[in-house]
Amino acid sequence: MNFIKAIESAWRENDSLVCVGLDPDISKIPANLRNRETPLFEFNKAIVDATADVVCAFKPQIAYYSASHAERDLELTIDYIHQKHPGVPVILDAKRGDIGSTAEKYAQEVFDRYKADAVTVNPYMGADTLQPFLNRKDNGVIILCRTSNPGARDIQDLDSHGKKLYQIVASKAVTEWNYNSNVLLVVGATYPKELNEIRTIAGDMPFLVPGIGAQGGDVERAVTNGKTRNGTGMIINSSRTIIYASNRDDFAEAARNAAIALRDEINRYR
Amino acid sequence: MNFIKAIESAWRENDSLVCVGLDPDISKIPANLRNRETPLFEFNKAIVDATADVVCAFKPQIAYYSASHAERDLELTIDYIHQKHPGVPVILDAKRGDIGSTAEKYAQEVFDRYKADAVTVNPYMGADTLQPFLNRKDNGVIILCRTSNPGARDIQDLDSHGKKLYQIVASKAVTEWNYNSNVLLVVGATYPKELNEIRTIAGDMPFLVPGIGAQGGDVERAVTNGKTRNGTGMIINSSRTIIYASNRDDFAEAARNAAIALRDEINRYR
Repeated sequence: MNFIKAIESAWRENDSLVCVGLDPDISKIPANLRNRETPLFEFNKAIVDATADVVCAFKPQIAYYSASHAERDLELTIDYIHQKHPGVPVILDAKRGDIGSTAEKYAQEVFDRYKADAVTVNPYMGADTLQPFLNRKDNGVIILCRTSNPGARDIQDLDSHGKKLYQIVASKAVTEWNYNSNVLLVVGATYPKELNEIRTIAGDMPFLVPGIGAQGGDVERAVTNGKTRNGTGMIINSSRTIIYASNRDDFAEAARNAAIALRDEINRYR
Repeated sequence: MNFIKAIESAWRENDSLVCVGLDPDISKIPANLRNRETPLFEFNKAIVDATADVVCAFKPQIAYYSASHAERDLELTIDYIHQKHPGVPVILDAKRGDIGSTAEKYAQEVFDRYKADAVTVNPYMGADTLQPFLNRKDNGVIILCRTSNPGARDIQDLDSHGKKLYQIVASKAVTEWNYNSNVLLVVGATYPKELNEIRTIAGDMPFLVPGIGAQGGDVERAVTNGKTRNGTGMIINSSRTIIYASNRDDFAEAARNAAIALRDEINRYR
């Protein structure tokens, strides 16, 4: 199924725009999981089972696995979600970007090896570096537009003949890169004004929205500025606030409660 | 040792600006290596031993390993180069870029896990996303500036108040990001005019120069436009032309001959 259709279905089925970021750090997961053979997978499995009916997507950040020699944990996690919770798509947050022949290898990594449903990519190198991802019709390609970090201004806000770089990226996403109806944009919750501008440019194109919680983004301002006409259009990610809601044996239940609280807060403003 | 000092030493010792791109594809390496336990490592080992005294660096492209479930081959390759050819630094071509906490994980992946000497990074997300790499004083941080692919124009050539985006990136690299004297730039051989412009902005900052060979860059024009006053300043990468110079049992010898031919051609114009 086309990724955007799958997200629309998950928004509807679970009445939720929440995405849980699966960014497990071995030093932060409960102590009794740390000596398991695949500790990050065991942690993720508990989080996933506790939250799958109250979210629209899961988003593992690949750096947390590759820094820890934990490719196997990532493979097991994505496979587990597909098997047990097939209605909840998986976004692999990898921010890849390279020349065509290499981008094709990255597309194989993300879609063939890890079997993610969607991936984040970096537009700096231009259209030909996005094509190997865009050509995967059934997969989502989530292009960095205006990110949530303080330094986002440094390059993305540069003005070119009256348009900011992030506005140009959003326009290209709509008019040039979306030929397979599989493009989404990354727009940070920490910049509500920019969210609103990009919503105007992008029509109903869905956004992946990081920056809620630990990064300081405000839920009400993000939702009111980023939602589409039908009150969806956003995949709102939270990682640390949900997965580390407790560091004791009740971590999965605490994660569920945190995900429900965020879902409900978001739904108040849709 | 500081990475730039290590590169300067390798330029001098081997009288070479050539970097060999270790981008092995299981379908393209000699048939008799394919059923080995770590075939990509076996292939790299032969290439490395055959070329280490005629090059200034090796550059594995991580996508070729991660697409093929071959992290172990990459670890073995870098470790082997450090053990057997300690005078030749290793650049991990990974083009990473993410918010601070995630960038720190990527820095751990590249420098602590794989033990690369330098890494390529993407500047789109801004200064705070580069810092975890820049703070590793002894490691090189090679920032994408003007890449070698056709689509490089799409974003990197955007004009902002009379300056192209790639010129702005080069200026920031020199004036803001080089506080540990460990910054280099990626500038493609396929755009000699831009190489020359960026050389003017960047002074003696070294460039990693892809695009020679399969991508069509001309050696004479690249060297005359990109070299520094003392005839160095460039790490000129070639992958396919060297590593696939032959697909038979003589592949390592053929790779050596191809590396020598490129070294000598480059040296004619230094």
